[in-house]
Amino acid sequence: MSLLRPRGILLRMTDPRLTPLAASLPDTVPFIGPETQERAMGRPFRARLGANENPFGPSPRAIEAMRAAAAQAWMYGDPESHELRQAIAAHHGVKPAHIRVGEGIDGLLGLLVRLTIGAGDWAITSLGGYPTFEFHVTGFGGRIEQVPYDGDRVDAAGLMDRATALGAKLVYIANPDNPMGGVHGADTIREMIDNLPAGALLVLDEAYVEFAPDGTAPEIDPTDDRVIRFRTFSKAHGLAGARVGYAIGSAPLIAAFDRVRNHFGLTRMAQAGALAALKDRDWLAQGLEHVASARARIAAIAHENGLAPLPSATNFVAIDCGGDGGLARRVMTGLAARGVFVRMPGVAPLDRCIRVSAGTEADLDAFAQALPEALEEARAAT
Amino acid sequence: MSLLRPRGILLRMTDPRLTPLAASLPDTVPFIGPETQERAMGRPFRARLGANENPFGPSPRAIEAMRAAAAQAWMYGDPESHELRQAIAAHHGVKPAHIRVGEGIDGLLGLLVRLTIGAGDWAITSLGGYPTFEFHVTGFGGRIEQVPYDGDRVDAAGLMDRATALGAKLVYIANPDNPMGGVHGADTIREMIDNLPAGALLVLDEAYVEFAPDGTAPEIDPTDDRVIRFRTFSKAHGLAGARVGYAIGSAPLIAAFDRVRNHFGLTRMAQAGALAALKDRDWLAQGLEHVASARARIAAIAHENGLAPLPSATNFVAIDCGGDGGLARRVMTGLAARGVFVRMPGVAPLDRCIRVSAGTEADLDAFAQALPEALEEARAAT
Repeated sequence: MSLLRPRGILLRMTDPRLTPLAASLPDTVPFIGPETQERAMGRPFRARLGANENPFGPSPRAIEAMRAAAAQAWMYGDPESHELRQAIAAHHGVKPAHIRVGEGIDGLLGLLVRLTIGAGDWAITSLGGYPTFEFHVTGFGGRIEQVPYDGDRVDAAGLMDRATALGAKLVYIANPDNPMGGVHGADTIREMIDNLPAGALLVLDEAYVEFAPDGTAPEIDPTDDRVIRFRTFSKAHGLAGARVGYAIGSAPLIAAFDRVRNHFGLTRMAQAGALAALKDRDWLAQGLEHVASARARIAAIAHENGLAPLPSATNFVAIDCGGDGGLARRVMTGLAARGVFVRMPGVAPLDRCIRVSAGTEADLDAFAQALPEALEEARAAT
Repeated sequence: MSLLRPRGILLRMTDPRLTPLAASLPDTVPFIGPETQERAMGRPFRARLGANENPFGPSPRAIEAMRAAAAQAWMYGDPESHELRQAIAAHHGVKPAHIRVGEGIDGLLGLLVRLTIGAGDWAITSLGGYPTFEFHVTGFGGRIEQVPYDGDRVDAAGLMDRATALGAKLVYIANPDNPMGGVHGADTIREMIDNLPAGALLVLDEAYVEFAPDGTAPEIDPTDDRVIRFRTFSKAHGLAGARVGYAIGSAPLIAAFDRVRNHFGLTRMAQAGALAALKDRDWLAQGLEHVASARARIAAIAHENGLAPLPSATNFVAIDCGGDGGLARRVMTGLAARGVFVRMPGVAPLDRCIRVSAGTEADLDAFAQALPEALEEARAAT
């Protein structure tokens, strides 16, 4: 339930035409957007550091490609995303039949769950891990088992134990991890694949992998039908607002997405932007350096305030506020009141942390300025 | 099955991890994109008249808004599409709680079917009608009943008869109709709503309603939970490539979409473009005039070739080629060979027609040039 918030805008009213499953689903959403908070506060955030976006932005070539595509917006985007799919396949040295492009990892995860999880089927994830996976599993009538972290790292062995015990269909791991930022080496991931119970699929979410040390992403035979991995243009490529993610998997599984996906769902601008971003390796490398510097500065700011930053292989840093979830929540709220948007895990003991995305110098100036006040206020309220 | 084509790219390979439902789904897609045909032909179409796109294009203000948003693409789009939703609500004189914005009508239809159709539930549509509705119903394990057209118009009474007989959950009607272009008056739609069996929902697809005569769209009390209507920015607003549609419905049903939708699925550029397009009423009016002229010219071209154009309340014209489905298919293929992309219904007797979208002068010049040759060739092959 990490990061899940009750929506609370409407009273619970249920249309009698809903299926029993749809009627049973909670009125929660995986994330509340910063715009919703801004509307409630009546002013915009000064620093947007809560959604693990990349303010160093997309390649100027990607922006130019999207601008050119805007003038062509009267045409539907290519439903096969042919050019982009070819380019991604070439980038990874696999055939296009192993690549499926979609509306972000979120959208692709939803389709994967729909394809594999029937009523009562088990899926395994981490307690406090990425809530959108749970949202989809619950949404399709599956059962979710949440394995506590091992300290501040995903408990890879624990996930496999529960998968085996329950005969799970899906085992989800984000590597590097969100929201804590930790990472497992490629060996651990390979071991997970080799230890999967029969009939299970490893869902390897590599949204943040470009930020991780070399060797984090295991080489995986794309014909291996025990694993599907996900990548995105939202993080390292700075294209969150264009919503493009992709899956790498075995050809039969990838082909099955065609049976259920929104074929014309990927916009023309998004396809053009992602293609241009993929080709601009220099911009990507430069952006990764910016993120590494920002990560170091977030850690330094934490230390200056007597707080412990967690090691991060992502574009964000979880900072241990040194107390319980209540303290961290007050720090988060105090930062928001000072115009700084951050998020935090929703489950103990992870929720002793706030999670701060790698921002620009100006963003982190605002964070550095607001943190001591927010901390003082949060501690005083104890 | 109208317009459905077997995909035929991969042999049928099924991943053993699929649910029984997913494993049972056909390897078909609702539409093959023109880009796929272009790649097969090795050259682009001269005239793109098959997807009912609007080549008069979006408002220049919408293009400018999308271009500005491209530079902000590092940020996720507002998951509530707040501004756009407010503007649409104001435009229709309803509260925002009655509006749900999504990734085109296709995407919203999929969510609606997911919310309402369980295994074995019945949905009613027209035989030869919009194939994407059938794609979704089948995809969620529902059963579909296809009612033959009454001549070339949707059989509104027939739909209701079958809905009552089968205790259907959903009754789909596109008004104006795709692919034949006909239209029912508002009175007929109101009558359908009043005659719906208990527990059924009328799915009123008004994708083309801006092109229809005044009075086509019935006034509907947005609190009426027996009907949900769909509109799009893809057609009259010329924004197919941005993929923005919306639903107008009762607040509990609209709220239920939040339980299953891809919350961050709508791109930043799409939201900005749709908002600007909605506000530019002059551009819309001008575009509708262009479409009306193009429609008249398509009809004239048909007459010049001794063919019968069907009356149209949309941005396309179905042309009766005067023979069977085989003849019309040969005409369509002959047009494609001459660089003109059109489509055709897939079911008899509708499939005696080709369907030609309202294009620019240059597009229709190409069509006028290619049609006599394509016709002659098609007839010679009989």
